[in-house]
Amino acid sequence: MKNRVKKIYRNLEKDVDVIVLANSTDPHLDMSFFYATGITTGLFEGSVAFLHPDGDIDLLTSQLEEETAKKSGLPLTIFMTRKQLVKKLKMLLDGHRRIGINFEEITHHYANRLKKLAPKAKLIDVSEGIRDARLTKDREELEILSKACRIASNAFVDLIPSIKKGKREVELAAELVYLMMKRGANEVAFTTIVASGPNSAEAHYTAGSRKLQKGDLVVFDFGAKYKKYNSDITRTIVVGKASEKQKRMHSVVRRAQNAALAKMRKGVKGSTIDKAARELIDSTEFKGKFVHSLGHSIGLATHDGGGLGPVSKVTMRAGMVFTNEPGIYISGYGGVRVEDDVLITSTKPKLLTTASRELIEV
Amino acid sequence: MKNRVKKIYRNLEKDVDVIVLANSTDPHLDMSFFYATGITTGLFEGSVAFLHPDGDIDLLTSQLEEETAKKSGLPLTIFMTRKQLVKKLKMLLDGHRRIGINFEEITHHYANRLKKLAPKAKLIDVSEGIRDARLTKDREELEILSKACRIASNAFVDLIPSIKKGKREVELAAELVYLMMKRGANEVAFTTIVASGPNSAEAHYTAGSRKLQKGDLVVFDFGAKYKKYNSDITRTIVVGKASEKQKRMHSVVRRAQNAALAKMRKGVKGSTIDKAARELIDSTEFKGKFVHSLGHSIGLATHDGGGLGPVSKVTMRAGMVFTNEPGIYISGYGGVRVEDDVLITSTKPKLLTTASRELIEV
Repeated sequence: MKNRVKKIYRNLEKDVDVIVLANSTDPHLDMSFFYATGITTGLFEGSVAFLHPDGDIDLLTSQLEEETAKKSGLPLTIFMTRKQLVKKLKMLLDGHRRIGINFEEITHHYANRLKKLAPKAKLIDVSEGIRDARLTKDREELEILSKACRIASNAFVDLIPSIKKGKREVELAAELVYLMMKRGANEVAFTTIVASGPNSAEAHYTAGSRKLQKGDLVVFDFGAKYKKYNSDITRTIVVGKASEKQKRMHSVVRRAQNAALAKMRKGVKGSTIDKAARELIDSTEFKGKFVHSLGHSIGLATHDGGGLGPVSKVTMRAGMVFTNEPGIYISGYGGVRVEDDVLITSTKPKLLTTASRELIEV
Repeated sequence: MKNRVKKIYRNLEKDVDVIVLANSTDPHLDMSFFYATGITTGLFEGSVAFLHPDGDIDLLTSQLEEETAKKSGLPLTIFMTRKQLVKKLKMLLDGHRRIGINFEEITHHYANRLKKLAPKAKLIDVSEGIRDARLTKDREELEILSKACRIASNAFVDLIPSIKKGKREVELAAELVYLMMKRGANEVAFTTIVASGPNSAEAHYTAGSRKLQKGDLVVFDFGAKYKKYNSDITRTIVVGKASEKQKRMHSVVRRAQNAALAKMRKGVKGSTIDKAARELIDSTEFKGKFVHSLGHSIGLATHDGGGLGPVSKVTMRAGMVFTNEPGIYISGYGGVRVEDDVLITSTKPKLLTTASRELIEV
């Protein structure tokens, strides 16, 4: 992906001769490897990408990934043994004096190894430039990410008839994952959350054996991984008729979400967007009950390098995608969270997640 | 988990005052953090564990994980902001001169950060000692891992009636994931592989839109993640009646697997086990068609730090768990792989995966 490599280089404050992105064993993979190469399948443990200032890429990969790697159309160097890998790494590093490294996604072990293989070179941290390049998505990325959002949205619509009293949280999580995969997800973006009744008051609860009861608030927080890109969406429903309090909670969350959405425009600071939602919630009886940040960038990682929180310094640019997920949590009682994935454009924000945001009573 | 921390310290060649295991953002988490603390749920991004030589642990975690962290019974230090994290990190590092770091699982960025926070201390690589400690599983780990294996095995048995001509690979992958979650998996261990017909000849193919056809070999390679531990199992079936060639392929793979299994005993070297399977396959018409290593350790990572390959130096010890997965791949035609998870004991090896290994015709 020449354009992505060039975008990274344009972001750098210091000159480098080459950028080296190195994967260790799963989960210690550099997701920027997939960004730069445009590779959307395969595991690529132990693979290394060399990014050159003119946008060219050299790919060093094991024989196991050869078939998948070929589809990228990039020049390949194949290794079969660890010994061969080291030899080829050395060859490709040779002559470079200023080597850019993604400090935030390479293991300390691998960085030290590169230092030894290129003892005369200086390793320069380029993680900020890479992170920033990944924050604004290009057309290909937006196509994939939009599909990941559609998959999750539609899967939830498919799930609704299944949500009823007596169902266990884990059963609903299993069904939701099945429905996402049936619609094309390769995997889930993160462990699916189905939090019912008092569990819904815990923002980081996942799913357990509790059965849904009449009167429960139930928070579903889930996402699809599609071609390595992640969506992240939350909907809250009530089992049976919603009480007045539950309706007020949901309505305040929705109003907070809309207040934030209105600010999700080019040039606005992340902290301003968070503030819009937080001030709205804090102006109601639910003051202080919104206990986490408003959102985060999504992409190749679910938390993809930028946040919308009280001290966020990131400024909105066209092509960024952030979650917008205010919530209200009342310990021992329950919680409401509604979350959408929002694309910042040069005009108004675009919702990539589509499932109805109204309070659903099942 | 006092016993695990002490086990790590016993493994160290150099003295250290404290070991620091630090998580960045998902996927850059140190899985050894979960090993040492015994925590089996939650994400714990940004959390840090301090392991002391007497087995004590101090846990530094964000407010979001507080509820989950409390269940560990470990002494907690909670931070709310990044600023507080840095302050508390500094406090906990203070006075230590020799700080053990898991170089293989910490990002280069985080290691540099620790260096700055403790400028007088020496950072010492303890990754080998940690990796080695994790290679032999204790009773609690084996209980969890065995369950992860049972979940995957039983889910495959559940799936068999669904496997038929005309089904798409991705549909079967979705069903298999659903069945694993229904039986208690929190997630999958890795992207589920359903490779049919010629696709089965690619060892690293995942699942696509191809429909199963009569005469296909179909490789299912999948695993459950349960309480953060991973199982990994492969079965191969034939759609319709198996041909003589398919029967021979399957029978050779099974014989190779048995030959390896017979060697999976205390004191045997990894390379010897690989050789047993490889020599068997290479003595048949399928010589040279077994193109990958025989197996790998499994645990908190699917590739958990040790391998069974032609040059593996690891020596079997009671409590280790390795996959045993020979295969035969014929390009353009198809492949057969059968994989089990095997516990090394003080006597004979124990199969943790149970689904029938016979060639199933559907």
